[in-house]
Amino acid sequence: MTVPETLSIDTSALPCHYVTLGAEDPLRLDCGTELGDFTVAYQTYGELNDEKSNAVLVCHALTGDQFVGDTHPITKKPGWWEVIVGPGKIIDTDRYYVICPNVIGGCMGTIGPKEINPATGQPWGLDFPVITIADMVRVQAMLLDHLGIDSLFAAIGGSMGGMQVLEWVASYPERVFAALPIATAARHSAQNISFHEVGRQAIMADPDWRNGDYRLHGVRPCRGLAVARMAAHITYLSEAALTRKFGRRLQDREAVTFGFDADFQVESYLRRQGGVFVERFDANSYLYITRAMDYFDLEARYDGVLADAFRGARTRFCVLSFTSDWCYPTEESRRIVRALNAVAANVSFAEIVSDCGHDAFLLDEPEFHRVLAGFLDGAADHRGLPR
Amino acid sequence: MTVPETLSIDTSALPCHYVTLGAEDPLRLDCGTELGDFTVAYQTYGELNDEKSNAVLVCHALTGDQFVGDTHPITKKPGWWEVIVGPGKIIDTDRYYVICPNVIGGCMGTIGPKEINPATGQPWGLDFPVITIADMVRVQAMLLDHLGIDSLFAAIGGSMGGMQVLEWVASYPERVFAALPIATAARHSAQNISFHEVGRQAIMADPDWRNGDYRLHGVRPCRGLAVARMAAHITYLSEAALTRKFGRRLQDREAVTFGFDADFQVESYLRRQGGVFVERFDANSYLYITRAMDYFDLEARYDGVLADAFRGARTRFCVLSFTSDWCYPTEESRRIVRALNAVAANVSFAEIVSDCGHDAFLLDEPEFHRVLAGFLDGAADHRGLPR
Repeated sequence: MTVPETLSIDTSALPCHYVTLGAEDPLRLDCGTELGDFTVAYQTYGELNDEKSNAVLVCHALTGDQFVGDTHPITKKPGWWEVIVGPGKIIDTDRYYVICPNVIGGCMGTIGPKEINPATGQPWGLDFPVITIADMVRVQAMLLDHLGIDSLFAAIGGSMGGMQVLEWVASYPERVFAALPIATAARHSAQNISFHEVGRQAIMADPDWRNGDYRLHGVRPCRGLAVARMAAHITYLSEAALTRKFGRRLQDREAVTFGFDADFQVESYLRRQGGVFVERFDANSYLYITRAMDYFDLEARYDGVLADAFRGARTRFCVLSFTSDWCYPTEESRRIVRALNAVAANVSFAEIVSDCGHDAFLLDEPEFHRVLAGFLDGAADHRGLPR
Repeated sequence: MTVPETLSIDTSALPCHYVTLGAEDPLRLDCGTELGDFTVAYQTYGELNDEKSNAVLVCHALTGDQFVGDTHPITKKPGWWEVIVGPGKIIDTDRYYVICPNVIGGCMGTIGPKEINPATGQPWGLDFPVITIADMVRVQAMLLDHLGIDSLFAAIGGSMGGMQVLEWVASYPERVFAALPIATAARHSAQNISFHEVGRQAIMADPDWRNGDYRLHGVRPCRGLAVARMAAHITYLSEAALTRKFGRRLQDREAVTFGFDADFQVESYLRRQGGVFVERFDANSYLYITRAMDYFDLEARYDGVLADAFRGARTRFCVLSFTSDWCYPTEESRRIVRALNAVAANVSFAEIVSDCGHDAFLLDEPEFHRVLAGFLDGAADHRGLPR
């Protein structure tokens, strides 16, 4: 595996918005730490209407960022949800004002372990406080305050984005008209924690990690981070998708080589995934964000009664899952739906047939897109947004 | 994760048998290399009868070894299949002569990458030839020749052990009276290759791996090997088993610590699995044996017609799978059974209901044990073995 050992991600001047929050009223994190004067990087698309009623918050997943609908400034690839977000698309930026902030703990401009700790003048590293999904949502609420938006038309996200959507309704029910948690769960399972722990141990096993202070030493734990990405990436695909895309096909060769090169296409693919990932992501951010996901357990916060998280909410829900998603299986969505039903919430639920696994929410899945479009159009009518 | 960095596995004097094979007629490996004068370590239990008709070959899995039925000399734990193999047990050592050899490429006394290359006087390291499942079986056939055993009463094994069982019937059909491939597949899937590749990359990413020459430098890639083991271990358990055994329970604490310690029991468990594993296993052996499994594709060897691998075999088959095994799902066993049916082979098939995942074949599963015992007793009657 060839990875750049010394590449540094410069996120100080990305083509997006930056705002400093918490100057007057600091952010109080779940761990007890307070943060004042911190930066949030976010991207917006479309125009906020005069009533400020057409805002859509898109929450990104573990390795996502704010570039949901335009070219990624580092990889030069399309935005991670450009298939959904844009002019005339399902989340129509001619109609909605789309906001996508980089989460706290991230590495694309929002405060996180790779930014400078003002107390020391050095990168935070492991001195950065451990954050939670609720902390991510608190920061987003502060951003909305800054933008003067009382109430979102919709909060939408897949995977960890879906966790933030659930947290939004639990923490600020009056601020979310429609909530679309996709391919997600109300608590991280033992298997999910396990895969994250493998990734973290791979990073921490890399001597270049230097107990989190790699930036001080001018190195990066690229090999560990690449292994973490490879392990996680398998969980994002279904076995059927891996078989269909790669099967046992060989990579540019007629026969196996009796060695440890990437004989199989799937090996080559995974190595490439690892190599590309380290060019755009920070290893400590990977630790912090996976930890936030592991800690997410909405049910436990409500003494084991998930329904209580949603009691009284007037939000309209659209819960979606995919048949072949074994990372966040449909059963997790059903738990959410059962809790919503238990408090007579307004909920649509669909399990989309797809063999693409967890990643299906990022792909061109016609049935998924039909359901999304239908729900959003209906909700927009209820909100009184002009067509 | 705390792992011994310099621990060395001394397997030169284990409490088992050693034999030198290939002195006159060298072993010709699939890769083309020939090996003469090589050592095989194996364990036996019970007595070979006068007709030499009661031999049971137990084939071990990726990280198994010859200590199937007695205390492991390094870990001091019970043999890996002591629940099945022993006096009065299902594979009754009062009745059968049980042979369990350490596979070629292994690290418990049989020739493998950690042994000395006679051409250089140094450990083989990556100069050791890449081996296949068929090579493992060739060595076992040479061992049987040495023991004067023409025909096995039974060949049995789970996971990679089951691959060897299938290979036995394909390569030496006349030498296997009964074959019991358990929780296995006739070819390694893209997902299985993927998980193995993650493990290999974790080992190779460890700077102490030294391109396979770690023994020359007095170090061992323990951190990489532990990460490989952790990733693999998740695939051996079902999500249900992980949830039942650990769920989101915390490890000796009342609340999460907002840090990267093992807050969750499942994290602590996985770290322990990694730490214990490196005390008894060799990193290069892990590379070689996973590679052999990845290369296994019996169907491809018979031009895409798996049935041809078994055509004409008079062996009695017992194919077993477990409902919650997602590493080698029941569908893989069904493929084997369909191929056997297509040539009118004598085959019993059972899918055992268990929530324990792939590891079920190692555990105390009453239904599994009932089926095994019933098949073996019936086959022994057909073989004419006295009760």
